[in-house]
Order: sequence, then structure tokens, then C-alpha cells
Amino acid sequence: MKDIRQLSSQGIRALIRKGKWDKPTAGLAMGYAQANLVILPQKYAFDFLLFCQRNPKPCPLLEVLEPGEFRTKSLSLDADIRTDIPRYNIYQKGKLHHTVKEIRRFWKPDFVSFLLGCSFSFEEALVRSKIPVRHIEENKNVPMFITNIPCKPAGVFRGPMVVTMRPIPSEKVSRTVQITSRYAWVHGAPIHIGDPSTIGIKALKKPDFGDPVTIKKGEVPVFWACGVTPQAVVMTVKPDLCITHSPGHMFISDLLNEELAIF
Amino acid sequence: MKDIRQLSSQGIRALIRKGKWDKPTAGLAMGYAQANLVILPQKYAFDFLLFCQRNPKPCPLLEVLEPGEFRTKSLSLDADIRTDIPRYNIYQKGKLHHTVKEIRRFWKPDFVSFLLGCSFSFEEALVRSKIPVRHIEENKNVPMFITNIPCKPAGVFRGPMVVTMRPIPSEKVSRTVQITSRYAWVHGAPIHIGDPSTIGIKALKKPDFGDPVTIKKGEVPVFWACGVTPQAVVMTVKPDLCITHSPGHMFISDLLNEELAIF
Repeated sequence: MKDIRQLSSQGIRALIRKGKWDKPTAGLAMGYAQANLVILPQKYAFDFLLFCQRNPKPCPLLEVLEPGEFRTKSLSLDADIRTDIPRYNIYQKGKLHHTVKEIRRFWKPDFVSFLLGCSFSFEEALVRSKIPVRHIEENKNVPMFITNIPCKPAGVFRGPMVVTMRPIPSEKVSRTVQITSRYAWVHGAPIHIGDPSTIGIKALKKPDFGDPVTIKKGEVPVFWACGVTPQAVVMTVKPDLCITHSPGHMFISDLLNEELAIF
Repeated sequence: MKDIRQLSSQGIRALIRKGKWDKPTAGLAMGYAQANLVILPQKYAFDFLLFCQRNPKPCPLLEVLEPGEFRTKSLSLDADIRTDIPRYNIYQKGKLHHTVKEIRRFWKPDFVSFLLGCSFSFEEALVRSKIPVRHIEENKNVPMFITNIPCKPAGVFRGPMVVTMRPIPSEKVSRTVQITSRYAWVHGAPIHIGDPSTIGIKALKKPDFGDPVTIKKGEVPVFWACGVTPQAVVMTVKPDLCITHSPGHMFISDLLNEELAIF
């Protein structure tokens, strides 16, 4: 198992499918895009798809499956989203009920699965360009904040945008914008640069989710739309049932991050 | 009326709303994005939204309205899509039944309206960069071709991609790719450059829609995904009812083309 970092995306999914890997996926299958999962009963599907269409920065759709479908087509040709994620959270009426390693026994024919992009894709590009990614350096979870920026509502779904923050040396902020702009389908360019209070954030030391990170002299806080937004928005509606990946335990696709870049 | 080219997007929509302009909209409100319209009964809405999500190059969604809603929010704050388009086509079971100047009397509370981007947005950027746009020079409709490239199907919707062709001097092809890449939300970069037969096009002189244009020595045929694709795809399903704009008679938004550019 110590060689898991050398495995291909297919190889890791095969391990996960057999229940032999139930840990976080950060750092695995480097170069390949990882995805967030949201599964909803069909009655919520149009509204949620519309919500994602209206809010592409926090909710970048990589693939949406037909009702009842559990095999991906774009992200992989041999994946089963009922078994190929290390840990799933099952929510009933907005409350976490179980965390499980596979969801075949919970599957229903009206389930619609949404796979959304993850900031791992652009963080890899930042690291490759020698731009520091502090939470990776400090081996922490990225700090996340609830902002005062409302998402555009759609049907029953509404709520504020959640953002991630990465401190960037001021002379590298332009390059950071350029690099992340290439990943327009995966959160893309920052949504805010500088004063956190402008977007309703009171204390960078007290993130709403994740861990605080060191901000060094000469660094500017840079904020990106965050994939926690869609999950937070779904939970406000308290659907009868909703299944997601467990945070950090992502779906590993066969698509290269480079294939997600727009140019 | 001879001053219509000087009017703002709001001014032109006001004229159209009063029934005082029912001609094509090319060249009006320069700088502002124009949009294609597809209205479908709600039972088709999830499948069509999914089709657009899976095929963003031919089907770039600018705005989707909630079921029954006829006022836009993103594209304009004062538009009514029942009255603000010069001419509408009403299709019943896939056949054109009427062409009308407003659709208030046909409106139903389960109608879902999809507004899709239009290549006018990137053509303006090409012209501004001194890249020739032949059908504009020759005062023709852009040549369109049905390709052998299948769209990704979604629910009941499937069909081949339709493309537009613009001949570009070979030394300007790279610049053309760069410029149109900025408009990723509005068809974006070309989907094919060069030999038409590769994508199933037999004769550039015989487009499936629009007019043939002159291809000069040293010019390369360059192909972009075309907004006719979603309409063609909808018609194959022969929905009970479908309302679209009449070709060339677009919705004029208050959004600048520059606002649609990704960077």
C-alpha cells in the first residue's frame, strides 16, 4: 500500500472499490482531476442543475449523470460512483446519518449524480509555477469562509458563497490570477483579492471550515469560490436524502487537470 | 428609425416591444451580446439543460429562467422575453406553425426559457483585430454545416454538431484561436481547423444552412460550434410545442461582449 502514490487513477479506484483505501485522496494520482460528488433525488435535479448553471464559479460541473445512472462517461469510462469513492456521507433532511464506504445498498433509480470540480486542479498548477500554497506547505486543510456574496438563487436553492483563502506574495498575485484563469471550469480566477471585510469576512484567523494558515509579511489574501458552496446550499433545503463524498475523500477521474484548462 | 444603430440596447428593446422593429438584429447595439432563445415545456427542461451542460461549445447557456418566468435577470433587468425579440418561430411537433412578433398569448406557466450565446460576440472581436470575417464582408449569412461529430446525448436529446465556417488567412489562424478562446462562454475556440472532410463536410460551396462564401488563396477553413445545434437537436424530438427566436432576430442583452470574455 505504500506505493499508492505511484498508482494510476484506474488503479486507485480499483483499490477503493474493493474497500482497501478509505482515506483522503489529496496527493493521489497526481495530474488527474478529482471531483466532488452530490447525489440528489430527481425532484431536486432541475433546480440544482440550474443553480450550478447560474453559479459556475462555486459550482463547476464536470459531469452530471442521467437519473438512475451510476457510471460516469466523461470523467472515466470504467467508474461506478456507488463504490469508487473512499467515504460517502449520507444526509437525511440535512443531517448527517451515516458515513459509509460504498452506497450500492442505498441506491435508488431516481438518483441524479453531480460531479463538481475541485481546487486541487489549480493548486497543482500554482505549485508547478513556484507559487506558494500555504495550507499544503503547512499540511493543513484549506481555510474556508462564508461570505456576504449571495449566490444567484435557483428554484429551492439559495445561500451565500463559500470561499477558500490562499495568502500570495503581492508580486505573484498577477501571475496567480493568470494561472487560475486557465482553469475557468474549475473555480477559475479569484473572486476577490485583498481586504477580507469587503466580502463579509471578519477574521482570517477564524475560518468557518478548515484550518487557519500563516499569512506572512508582504502577502495578500486571495479568495476563490469554493466547492463547499453547493453542499452548504443543498443542506439548507434539507432534502429527504442527499449523498455526498466525505470531505477530502474525492472521486479520482481519468481526466488530466491539463484537459480541464481552457487553453 | 434611421438612427436605430445609435440606440442603446434598452432603446432597441423598447422599439421591438412596441412592434416597431421586426427585422434582423445584426449590427444593432454594437458591443452588446445578443442571444438565441429556446422555450420548452417544463417536461423537457431537465434533459435540455443537461444537454447544454454536456455540450457547452454548441450550447453556451447565458441564462436559463425558472419555469414560467419571462423576465431575465442576468442578461437585462428590464426585459420581457415574450415581447422583446423582433420575430418568434412557434413550432408544434417539430414543424413551424407561425412566425409572430410577440408571444404573450401563447405563454404557459410551465414554459422554461433558455438564452444561448451567439457568435456575433466573437465576430466583433475578430473584426476589431483586423481578422477578416468573410460573410460580413460579403453581406451574407454565415455558412453552416452539419458535421459527423455527435453531440453528447442527454435524455431525449441527441444529434450531430452543426458548425459555422469562416475562411482565415493562414498566418492569422493562431491569432484567431487566441481571440476566440477568450469567449469560452460563447462558442469559444474553433473545434476544427483545416480539411472539412475530417468532420464529414463534403462541399464548402454547399452549406446546409446560410450562404457559401469566397475562400481566397492562402486561407484555411476554420470551424466553430454553432448555435443552430440546439435548435436542430430540439426539433428531432418533435416536442408538442417549442418557441424560438426567428433566425437572425436575436435577443439584445445589456451585457457587453467584453463581460462575456473570460479574461
